[in-house]
Amino acid sequence: MNKSVIRYILGCVLKVEAAFLLLPSLVGFIYKEKQGIAFVIVAALCFILGTIMSFKKPENFLFYLKEGCVATALSWIFLSIFGALPFVINGDIPSFTNALFETISGFTTTGASILSDVEALSYSSLFWRSFTHWIGGMGVLVFLLAIIPLSGGSHINLMKAESPGPTVGKLVPKIRHTARILYIIYIVMTIIQIIFMLCGGESLFTSLTLSFGTAGTGGFSIKNDSIASYSAYTQWVITIFMILFGINFNAYYLLLFKKFKQIFRMDEVRWYLIIIAFSTIVIVLNLNAHHMASSDSIRHALFQVASIITTSGYATLDFDLWPSASKLILVGLIFIGACAGSTGGGIKVSRMLIAIKNAVREMYSYIHPRSIKQVKMDGKPLDNSVVRSVSVYLLTFFIIFSISLFAISFDNKDFTTNFTAVATTLNNVGPGLSMVGPTQNFGHFSVFAKYVFMFDMLAGRLELFPLLILFHPSLLKDWFTKRK
Amino acid sequence: MNKSVIRYILGCVLKVEAAFLLLPSLVGFIYKEKQGIAFVIVAALCFILGTIMSFKKPENFLFYLKEGCVATALSWIFLSIFGALPFVINGDIPSFTNALFETISGFTTTGASILSDVEALSYSSLFWRSFTHWIGGMGVLVFLLAIIPLSGGSHINLMKAESPGPTVGKLVPKIRHTARILYIIYIVMTIIQIIFMLCGGESLFTSLTLSFGTAGTGGFSIKNDSIASYSAYTQWVITIFMILFGINFNAYYLLLFKKFKQIFRMDEVRWYLIIIAFSTIVIVLNLNAHHMASSDSIRHALFQVASIITTSGYATLDFDLWPSASKLILVGLIFIGACAGSTGGGIKVSRMLIAIKNAVREMYSYIHPRSIKQVKMDGKPLDNSVVRSVSVYLLTFFIIFSISLFAISFDNKDFTTNFTAVATTLNNVGPGLSMVGPTQNFGHFSVFAKYVFMFDMLAGRLELFPLLILFHPSLLKDWFTKRK
Repeated sequence: MNKSVIRYILGCVLKVEAAFLLLPSLVGFIYKEKQGIAFVIVAALCFILGTIMSFKKPENFLFYLKEGCVATALSWIFLSIFGALPFVINGDIPSFTNALFETISGFTTTGASILSDVEALSYSSLFWRSFTHWIGGMGVLVFLLAIIPLSGGSHINLMKAESPGPTVGKLVPKIRHTARILYIIYIVMTIIQIIFMLCGGESLFTSLTLSFGTAGTGGFSIKNDSIASYSAYTQWVITIFMILFGINFNAYYLLLFKKFKQIFRMDEVRWYLIIIAFSTIVIVLNLNAHHMASSDSIRHALFQVASIITTSGYATLDFDLWPSASKLILVGLIFIGACAGSTGGGIKVSRMLIAIKNAVREMYSYIHPRSIKQVKMDGKPLDNSVVRSVSVYLLTFFIIFSISLFAISFDNKDFTTNFTAVATTLNNVGPGLSMVGPTQNFGHFSVFAKYVFMFDMLAGRLELFPLLILFHPSLLKDWFTKRK
Repeated sequence: MNKSVIRYILGCVLKVEAAFLLLPSLVGFIYKEKQGIAFVIVAALCFILGTIMSFKKPENFLFYLKEGCVATALSWIFLSIFGALPFVINGDIPSFTNALFETISGFTTTGASILSDVEALSYSSLFWRSFTHWIGGMGVLVFLLAIIPLSGGSHINLMKAESPGPTVGKLVPKIRHTARILYIIYIVMTIIQIIFMLCGGESLFTSLTLSFGTAGTGGFSIKNDSIASYSAYTQWVITIFMILFGINFNAYYLLLFKKFKQIFRMDEVRWYLIIIAFSTIVIVLNLNAHHMASSDSIRHALFQVASIITTSGYATLDFDLWPSASKLILVGLIFIGACAGSTGGGIKVSRMLIAIKNAVREMYSYIHPRSIKQVKMDGKPLDNSVVRSVSVYLLTFFIIFSISLFAISFDNKDFTTNFTAVATTLNNVGPGLSMVGPTQNFGHFSVFAKYVFMFDMLAGRLELFPLLILFHPSLLKDWFTKRK
C-alpha cells in the first residue's frame, strides 16, 4: 500500500477545503455575522494541517485502484469532519453528531437535514450548507485532478473511485483534461442557472444557494418549506436545471462538439427522460382520479419527479399527502436515480437498464439455450465484466440496504419511515415518507441511527465499494504491513 | 416446440388432479356434506378431459428446457383453475376470482387467504384447501415423474423447471428414482407429523389438515385465529416440523445413508439454522426491551420465525403488534426463505449466501485486482454460470417485485400493506403486516390486485423464469410456427 501518496492527497484535500471555507467567511463578513469567524478559524486549521500533511512529497505517485478507493473514502471522511466544525464552533448546530450528519448530507448531496428550523441559521452557515452540495456534486478529487498536476499515471483510479456509474467515460485521453472539462461545464451551467434565478427577481444569496443545491442535486433549502413559497417561475427554473444536472455530462461535451447523432444514441439519457415524462403523467392522472388535481398539478408533479429522480430532494408541497400510487412512484424514483456521470445519485438509470436487459437475456437463454446474446448499451455490446459488476453492485446495494434497515429499526419507528429513510439516504435523495417526509426531518432519530445514515450517505455517494473496502480485513492487513 | 408432449403432460396432470380430488369427495361423504358432491363432479371433469388430452401419445418424448418450462407453467395454471371450481360449485367461495386466488395460494403453498371466516367452510372444502398445500409443496410434475414412465431423456428439464433452488441436485443418476425418493421422504415425514399431532390429542381431521399445511410449508389453517388456540404441545410440534420441512431434502437422503460428514458440510442448512436461532434470540430480547416478553416468548418467537422463514405463514399471535425491529426481522425472513430443495419458498438461503459471497469477492478484487477467487459452497467452488444465474434471478425478482408493487398501489392502501403484501405473495409466505397482517386477509383488494398477487404467487413458486417465458415474444413465435 502506497501510504505516502494517500497522506499527500489528504493534505491537498484539506488545503482545497481551506480555500472553499473562505467563501462562507466572506458571506459572514458581508452580513457582519460573528458566526462567520468560525469558518475563518477552521479554514486556518485546515490550511495548517493540509500543509503539514502534503509537505513531504511521496517518493512515487504510482497507485492502484486500492489506493484510489482508500484515498477517496478517507478524503470524504476528512472533508466532512472538518466541514462540520464551523457549525459546532459558531453554535448554529451545537451537537457534533448533528453537525456531522448535516455536513455529510451536504457533501454527499443528500439534503437530508436534522434541523427543524433552517431559517434560524446564520447566513454564513446557510451558505456553507448549500456550498457543500456544490463541492460534493462533481467531487473533490475530480477537482483536485483538474487543478493539481499529480505526476505519474493511474489517475483513472482516483476518478473511478469517485465518479458515479458503471463505467468511467474518458472524454479525452488525458484524465486531467477530462476533469477540467467536467468542471468547466459544471461551473458554466451553475452560472447560467444563477442568472436565470436573478432574472426571476430572487436575491443574489437565494440565487447562489439554491443554484448550488440544484447543481449538486443536493436539496438543502434556505427556507423551512423548501421551495414551496417561491414563485412559479423560480420553481420552473429549478425543475429544468435539476433535470439538466441529472443528465450524463458527456452529453454536454458531445453537444459542444455538435455530435448530435451520438447524443441520440445514449440509451440512458433517453430512458431518463422517458421515465420523467411517464412518472409525471401517471402522477397527474392519479391525483386527478383522487380529485386532488389543480391547474398547478403538472408543475408540482414534474417538480417532485425531477427532484426525486435526480436525487435533489427539494419539494414544492407535501407529497406525503398524495395517494399511494403517486407516492410509490416517488419511492421507485428514489432507487432509480439519475444518469451515470451526472451529479445525481441513486442506483443510476444505466445500471437499471443493464440489469433489465440482462434479465431479458437470461429469459431468452431458456428458450434458445445455445444462443449467445450480449447485453447492448448505446448500440454497442457491453463487456461481460461490466454486466457482472452491475449485478454485484445491485446485490451489494440491497445487502447494505437490509442491514441498515435492520440497524435503525431499533428506534421503533414505523416501517414506511424506516424503509424510506434508508432509501433516501443511501440514494442521496433527502426526503422520504411518513416521519421523514418533505415537511419532516431526521432530528428525531437516535445517535446510533444517525451514524448508520451517515455511513449510508457516504456509501451511496462513493458507490459502495470505495467505502466498504476500508472495512475489509485484507486491506487492514495491507495497511499495517510494510510497503512492497 | 414439441407441443404434443406438452399436451400429453397436461392430460396426465389433469388425471392426477382427478385422483387427488377424490380425497375431499371422501371427506364430504364421511361428514355427509352436500358440498362434497362438487369435488366428485370436478374429479370426473378432470378425468374425462385428462384422458382425451393424453389419449394420443406424442411421437417423441424429447423435450428441452423450453418445453419443460412451458409444460410446468401451464400445468400449474390448469391445476389451479380446475382446483378452484369445486369452491365455486359448492358455494363455499362463490366468486371465481376469490376461489382461484385461494387455490393458487394453496398450490403455491402461500397460504394467503381472501376468507375472513375460514370456519364457515365445509369440511370437504377445508380439507381440499389444506391438501393443495401438500400437493404443491413437492410439486405435481415431480410426482408425475415419480409415477409415470416418460420414456426418452430430458426429464431433468421438467425437474429443473419445478424444483426450487439455484441448482438441481440429482440424488441418484436416474431422475425418476430421485423423484420417487423425494416423495417417499415427503410422505414418511408427513405421516410422522400426523402421528405426533394425534398423540397431542388433536382430531384426525385437524392432524391431517395442519400437517398438510406444515409439510407443504403452506399455512392455511382451519381456524380463524390460525394456530393461536391450539395447545403449546401442538404449537411445538408444528414449529419443529416447519423447520424440518424447510431443510434441503438431500440432507435427509444423506441421513438415510449415514453420510453425516456431507450433511455437516452443507453451508445452506447450517446458515438456515443459524438465522433461525439468531432471529429468535433478537426478537425475544427486543420484546423484553419493550416489556412485552412473557414466559411463552421463546415459543412464540421461534414459532413465528420458523413459520416465516420456511414461508409457511401460520401464526400463534398477532405479530403486527410487535415492536419495529421484531417485525422487520420477519420481513427480512419473508425474503430469505427456506433452503433450496425443500418445500419452502422465498429467495432461498443458498441464493442469499451465493450473493453475499459474490459481493465479498468483488470487494476483494478491488484490493487484489489480479487475484482469481471463486465463490465456494459446501467447500466446493461454484461454477460461474451458477453465480451469474443467481445474480440474474435476484435482479429479476426485484424487477417483478417493483412492478407488482406499482400495480397494486392503485388500490390506495398504505405503503406497509402494499410492500408486505407483494413480498408475502411473491415469496409464498402468506401473512404480511398492517392490512395483510396475520389477523387480516386479502379479501379487501380489488380484482385487478388479486390477479397481480396470483401471478406473483405462481412466479414465486415456479421461481420466475418458467412462468415469465410464457410472455416472451420469441416463445409465442415458436408456438405458432411448425415444429422443426
